[in-house]
Amino acid sequence: METLDENAGVISASKVTGTNVYNTEGDLLGEIHDVMLDKRSGRIAYAIMSFGGFLGIGEQYHPLPWATLKYDTRQGGYVVGLTREQLQGAPTFALTDSPAWGDRAYETRIHDYYKTAPYWGV
Amino acid sequence: METLDENAGVISASKVTGTNVYNTEGDLLGEIHDVMLDKRSGRIAYAIMSFGGFLGIGEQYHPLPWATLKYDTRQGGYVVGLTREQLQGAPTFALTDSPAWGDRAYETRIHDYYKTAPYWGV
Repeated sequence: METLDENAGVISASKVTGTNVYNTEGDLLGEIHDVMLDKRSGRIAYAIMSFGGFLGIGEQYHPLPWATLKYDTRQGGYVVGLTREQLQGAPTFALTDSPAWGDRAYETRIHDYYKTAPYWGV
Repeated sequence: METLDENAGVISASKVTGTNVYNTEGDLLGEIHDVMLDKRSGRIAYAIMSFGGFLGIGEQYHPLPWATLKYDTRQGGYVVGLTREQLQGAPTFALTDSPAWGDRAYETRIHDYYKTAPYWGV
């Protein structure tokens, strides 16, 4: 787990990766596995949160719209306003899956689930 | 060096990292070391291109505004419209430096050098 400098609005993708994700109750939900970037618009699309599994085996991934993540200096990680139960129904994929990045129908379902505005505008 | 899927507008930061950067003459300039993200605006700020050095020792870094990079499928890497000579005068830092990310004066100098619009808008 990395500890980010909370004052830096501009942070490196390599530091975001590995940061823990908690919910507002303080439960550890997972950690950031990667960050998805939209080349054309220049926008950060998703943080990919890994959860479950052990040493990478059986891990699953939730694509979290970037706007859902708030950095919490006290926790030293990101906080999302989701219970474990809410996450259980959230879009997920396995390492062997190829999510349909760039497919607006697929991506709209992600944003609808989290009730966030799509990063590509509407 | 990674080969990116040119059809995917949405790509992972971990795949961008390690991708070669060429100029329009086909000269290898360096490779992407990391990606800088602006947390607040949700925008991709810079690709950090490493160059020089050997096995990480003596390496230097150029922050390239994200908009300067075009992916070229033929080259299997990013192409920037800069000669080696133009890059020699470009903003650079060493691994031991702490660039003033988020400092608009510092960042404006980077964007001015590359004649790109600042990612934070004007």
